[in-house]
Amino acid sequence: MDFNALAQQFTEFYYNQFDSDRTQLGNLYRDESMLTFETTQLQGAKNIVEKLVSLPFQKVSHRITTLDAQPASSNGDVLVMITGDLLIDEEQNPQRFSQVFHLIPEGSSYYVFNDIFRLNYSA
Amino acid sequence: MDFNALAQQFTEFYYNQFDSDRTQLGNLYRDESMLTFETTQLQGAKNIVEKLVSLPFQKVSHRITTLDAQPASSNGDVLVMITGDLLIDEEQNPQRFSQVFHLIPEGSSYYVFNDIFRLNYSA
Repeated sequence: MDFNALAQQFTEFYYNQFDSDRTQLGNLYRDESMLTFETTQLQGAKNIVEKLVSLPFQKVSHRITTLDAQPASSNGDVLVMITGDLLIDEEQNPQRFSQVFHLIPEGSSYYVFNDIFRLNYSA
Repeated sequence: MDFNALAQQFTEFYYNQFDSDRTQLGNLYRDESMLTFETTQLQGAKNIVEKLVSLPFQKVSHRITTLDAQPASSNGDVLVMITGDLLIDEEQNPQRFSQVFHLIPEGSSYYVFNDIFRLNYSA
């Protein structure tokens, strides 16, 4: 599978899982994985999932606007940047977000090494 | 220098150079470097600088809103995600952008291996 197909498949899986049951996202992270979620920095699958589960909303929906990928090393690493809209609970107005994933191959699959998430505000 | 300081220093240098004289950005890229600029994908310092120089504006100013960095490997690689506002020529309304850089150490400095740039639109 080429890096564009991998990035697209991973991203769709990730947001579908996030939006339906984010308690199951831990399989995608390892002990060395890092998450920056807004101003919070975390390391390790357990801490990352605790943070994601603790986010104060019940219903959430990610809509992808742009998805771009590049090979990030000669070892099969893939870098993905997504911009999109986030719909939370009963709010009418989506919030724009930007997110980057650095994916590392492991056997026939990939895990998330780097994950940076930011809502987009004007300066 | 820690990865946060490196990321901040690199990003300020990059946007200052971009906004004052983007013909000089080639020193930051190598033959294996990749740029995704909106829907255009390019590889190599020469192609990347040609693209950046050809962008159809005279005056440009990047304003950083958020800057987040993480170590991207055990070799000193750094991943940086920036969101911000872009002011072009005489336009009054800034455009929001998102950009990610994957920086790789080389001697006492760093070069750009991955560079993905997107303006942020609503879906």
